[in-house]
Amino acid sequence: MSSLVFTPMTRADFTLFWPDFKAIVEARETYAIDSDIDFESAYALWCQAPKATFAVKDQDGTLLGAYYLKANAQGPGGHVCNCGYMVNATARGKGVARAMCEHSQRIARELDFKAMQFNAVVATNTVAVALWQQLGFAIVGTVPAAFCHARHGLVDIHVMHKAL
Amino acid sequence: MSSLVFTPMTRADFTLFWPDFKAIVEARETYAIDSDIDFESAYALWCQAPKATFAVKDQDGTLLGAYYLKANAQGPGGHVCNCGYMVNATARGKGVARAMCEHSQRIARELDFKAMQFNAVVATNTVAVALWQQLGFAIVGTVPAAFCHARHGLVDIHVMHKAL
Repeated sequence: MSSLVFTPMTRADFTLFWPDFKAIVEARETYAIDSDIDFESAYALWCQAPKATFAVKDQDGTLLGAYYLKANAQGPGGHVCNCGYMVNATARGKGVARAMCEHSQRIARELDFKAMQFNAVVATNTVAVALWQQLGFAIVGTVPAAFCHARHGLVDIHVMHKAL
Repeated sequence: MSSLVFTPMTRADFTLFWPDFKAIVEARETYAIDSDIDFESAYALWCQAPKATFAVKDQDGTLLGAYYLKANAQGPGGHVCNCGYMVNATARGKGVARAMCEHSQRIARELDFKAMQFNAVVATNTVAVALWQQLGFAIVGTVPAAFCHARHGLVDIHVMHKAL
């Protein structure tokens, strides 16, 4: 998808993003986040705790998605980062997630991270698993029955990793 | 090891434990925690953020170690718990870690957790890996070069898991 614009996510951006965030966690299909999380907790989780959070918009300024980037661990584990990506419902299937992941890898290298790790890619989210694999991530572990999916019940999660 | 006494960890217990906690993180061999963490941050990490924290003492009241138990994720991942265990330097090799892990599994079941997951067992910590395996944990993933070990440089970490 061409002509995407990445900017550090503001509180105003997050306010626009919030209905999509809420819908994604309420679906209980992809994120291990409480489905009844409130706005302030979500804002803290997505925009304040991470090292960086970006909004992605089209040329008209329409918000398409957002991602955060943070250290996955501290101290001797601090060279590995972790990201989470969400695409707005109206912007799916247009390469927004791919563009966000590629952007996040550039930012991670600029921040001197040496690897990126996803801790909980829900195994039934095959579109995401395939996309991350296309982008060079490997499944380095699978935790059985670690996610209680709204439709499928207990499903596995994958740990995915890429050296940067 | 017989006659161990487990009690919810108090701030006074943590104050006694602090030199051992500090030595363990400064060693940079087993925990992905900043080696320059201060007391209050360590207390928050070990005793306030977790769902439960236990001190283990001998019959004379001497502190031998401590562990925390918390949910490893939220929402659809909230049925899996995570623990961290530390044994005081003077109490190593006496079965304290084994006793703590067994105790933590009982507490986890009481709290209705369905599984226990360790996210970052340092691969060079072969004593711990073997002990967790003896206690029924499986290595379900290995993340390459995710821990910068003080003596060995970049080493792998294992994700370990046990259904409860």
